[in-house]
Amino acid sequence: MKQRKKQPQITRQAILEAAGAEFSIHGYAGSGLGSIVTRAELTKGALFHHFPDKRAMAAAWIEDHLSPALAAHWITPLELIGSLDALRAFCRTRCMELTPGDATSALVSLTAETAASDDVLGTALEHIFTHWRAALADLLERGKADGWIHRSIQPASEAAFVVSAFAGFSVTTRAHPEENALRTCATALEAYLETLRAQ
Amino acid sequence: MKQRKKQPQITRQAILEAAGAEFSIHGYAGSGLGSIVTRAELTKGALFHHFPDKRAMAAAWIEDHLSPALAAHWITPLELIGSLDALRAFCRTRCMELTPGDATSALVSLTAETAASDDVLGTALEHIFTHWRAALADLLERGKADGWIHRSIQPASEAAFVVSAFAGFSVTTRAHPEENALRTCATALEAYLETLRAQ
Repeated sequence: MKQRKKQPQITRQAILEAAGAEFSIHGYAGSGLGSIVTRAELTKGALFHHFPDKRAMAAAWIEDHLSPALAAHWITPLELIGSLDALRAFCRTRCMELTPGDATSALVSLTAETAASDDVLGTALEHIFTHWRAALADLLERGKADGWIHRSIQPASEAAFVVSAFAGFSVTTRAHPEENALRTCATALEAYLETLRAQ
Repeated sequence: MKQRKKQPQITRQAILEAAGAEFSIHGYAGSGLGSIVTRAELTKGALFHHFPDKRAMAAAWIEDHLSPALAAHWITPLELIGSLDALRAFCRTRCMELTPGDATSALVSLTAETAASDDVLGTALEHIFTHWRAALADLLERGKADGWIHRSIQPASEAAFVVSAFAGFSVTTRAHPEENALRTCATALEAYLETLRAQ
């Protein structure tokens, strides 16, 4: 009985995981419902039982999968950072890890594709960016209070800049996936972060 | 006679302009051939006379339209820049001008959507990024020689960083098109560019 109760939730998760994998590779418009159900080893009937249409499925995937994945990569780890050297090392690692299939890349490519033409998805995606910027701004604010970030720094501006830079790196990575390109971005980012250091 | 000779070229241009407008709004996968020919006020027959398929049409649009548009925005104007203040002002202007329908945004969204899954389009788009980075690196190299860029700067790294940052701004702009967000990015970018100044 216990297992039967859970089945709808398991099916829903399987659909969202398959949808996310398809969106990450083929984009939103390029992901057909047929290939999503094939990947999930389900029927279209099962999909429509859970979601009225592709957009509702994408919105659920953004909220239930993409948002926590981004938070695990970019928000939770910030709590452990207590120096500019740690921030530099963290950003370098995240930069070197960027791959075309990861959460950052999925966030950016879905935003680039849909945000200008679809208010529902655009708003859901912008919420993730807003949380990401706010978490980074909070860290920089804390760094100012603790004396390792220069007191003239505007945390909100610098956070917006760093998030935009990472969004750009993930696009660059899609077109140009060599390790060397990532290293170049990581090095320039570290040089930029160094300018935030308290003198 | 003269006009009849030119007609195929005019039709080709009309198709590419319509395709570019559709790609910029709906992305590559989201742009149907039907809506492209409707926008161009032509038939699918006319389209297939010029291009075997959508991908060939997209590749032609990237080469004939997107690449020159990007060069006009980002490469040609660099020739006139001869100081860090001029570079800051130029980058600020380009940042404040970013809109979801412009060439930068089209380049970035098309790259985010297709580069990881389509080698032909990915390579064509990466060529544009390569030229953009090279032009900016050349300017920074010239700035070092002329004494307005710090001599410890690595032009290729910094150029890759600035291009990535702009790619990221254009994504942010799609999700978050307020003037205030652009101003925040422009201000942080100027603060970053200031760190390149010769001491």
